[in-house]
Amino acid sequence: MFKHEDEVIDDLQRDGLRILQKQDGFKFGIDAVLLSHFVEARPGAVIYDLGTGTGIIPMLLSSLVPAERIVGVEIQHEMAEMAGRTVRMNDLEDRIEILEVDVHDCAEVLGRATADVVVSNPPYFKANSALKNPHDGKAIARHEIRLTLETLVASAAALLKPGGHLFMIHRPHRLVDLIHALRTHQLEPKVIRFISPRRDKAPNLFLIRATRGGRPELRFLDPLSIYNDDGSYTREVLSIYQEASIDINEKEEGR
Amino acid sequence: MFKHEDEVIDDLQRDGLRILQKQDGFKFGIDAVLLSHFVEARPGAVIYDLGTGTGIIPMLLSSLVPAERIVGVEIQHEMAEMAGRTVRMNDLEDRIEILEVDVHDCAEVLGRATADVVVSNPPYFKANSALKNPHDGKAIARHEIRLTLETLVASAAALLKPGGHLFMIHRPHRLVDLIHALRTHQLEPKVIRFISPRRDKAPNLFLIRATRGGRPELRFLDPLSIYNDDGSYTREVLSIYQEASIDINEKEEGR
Repeated sequence: MFKHEDEVIDDLQRDGLRILQKQDGFKFGIDAVLLSHFVEARPGAVIYDLGTGTGIIPMLLSSLVPAERIVGVEIQHEMAEMAGRTVRMNDLEDRIEILEVDVHDCAEVLGRATADVVVSNPPYFKANSALKNPHDGKAIARHEIRLTLETLVASAAALLKPGGHLFMIHRPHRLVDLIHALRTHQLEPKVIRFISPRRDKAPNLFLIRATRGGRPELRFLDPLSIYNDDGSYTREVLSIYQEASIDINEKEEGR
Repeated sequence: MFKHEDEVIDDLQRDGLRILQKQDGFKFGIDAVLLSHFVEARPGAVIYDLGTGTGIIPMLLSSLVPAERIVGVEIQHEMAEMAGRTVRMNDLEDRIEILEVDVHDCAEVLGRATADVVVSNPPYFKANSALKNPHDGKAIARHEIRLTLETLVASAAALLKPGGHLFMIHRPHRLVDLIHALRTHQLEPKVIRFISPRRDKAPNLFLIRATRGGRPELRFLDPLSIYNDDGSYTREVLSIYQEASIDINEKEEGR
């Protein structure tokens, strides 16, 4: 009824939540799960997820934090439409809304300074001419074709209430771009947590919290390792997945 | 002959190098040693060390890299004078020069775009009113009383040739300030290495290399841990100290 022919339903095994994903399209990865667990929000909070894709982050947040309203923003029609069906399939229309709108126009559509929390798991890579098909949904999710870091940060700054928080996950090679953009837009980086495949290894992801108008002072959390030395998942990763009750072996592909 | 009454001579046990330090003053720490080992320079390079203190970094660099000329800049008369005696005591006047000058005036004195490499182990903490004695040498070495991060970065940018490198060590809570200042002054952060007391712990120091006019793309090196889980020094730290041949137990106080 909700599922189209080229889609699969994945059971998130948390509060009975299920999500639609394209069989051959971009699937959510461990980064969306780690980011969702990094988000903090007060009861009644209004949360916007910029570039929501399948809607995985609003879905997980609906179960993880006591937010009143979660809006997932997605520019790709096909993805936004599917995420909307996921919301209806889970009877979450009262808490989650999927908006098909360009992040660039978000503040106009949703209103300036209306969010307590903004979340984003953005495209990690700069757009480049080597891209085979810039209209491909996977490419749009992975590359800054439709959403640059600068636009994302500017929109988050416009959407957040003073004192509101932006939570993001990104790749370390863009740390300078991100930190520079955040401070330029008065979103002060407050907390960073690096994520490494194994301890002793360079990070390949980082979680960051920035606060609109926050006082300059950055705190580092202990790093998170995904694997133990023997190749098994670390206790923390297992506990995150246990809490989210997602079968990690199925979800690990992603990006 | 070289040593004053309130000073001690420490044997660096590398190429017979010895250094003068105040008995009760600021002593160089592991950070100066780690930074010196992080520096790369081509044969014939001109290197400036901004805020050189005892002159420990020029001394170590004279043995670690094939630089032609190393200038240590120090605003505190007493320190600059002592560092100058250390240079003469080691017969290194032909390679190392100690200049008593404000970092703010460096580019005027030394000339713009004259350095291949700039190094700095700057004061880590913002100046604040809680400081008991802002004229105290230790306080000046540790707090941004005479040298702010902004001034330091601006001077480094003015001193470096295009493509020249800045090597620094700093505390993670100032990472945002530093990265923002670097990019603002066209010194692009290229490499970061975090240093943690133990693996799995949040970093308490980081090494950074920035390149004047460099292409934006940041690379993270595998982190460096100081101690093993059993409290002993890690193999890498021991090998750095073995290479520098400094007795680590004596030098570890520092800041």
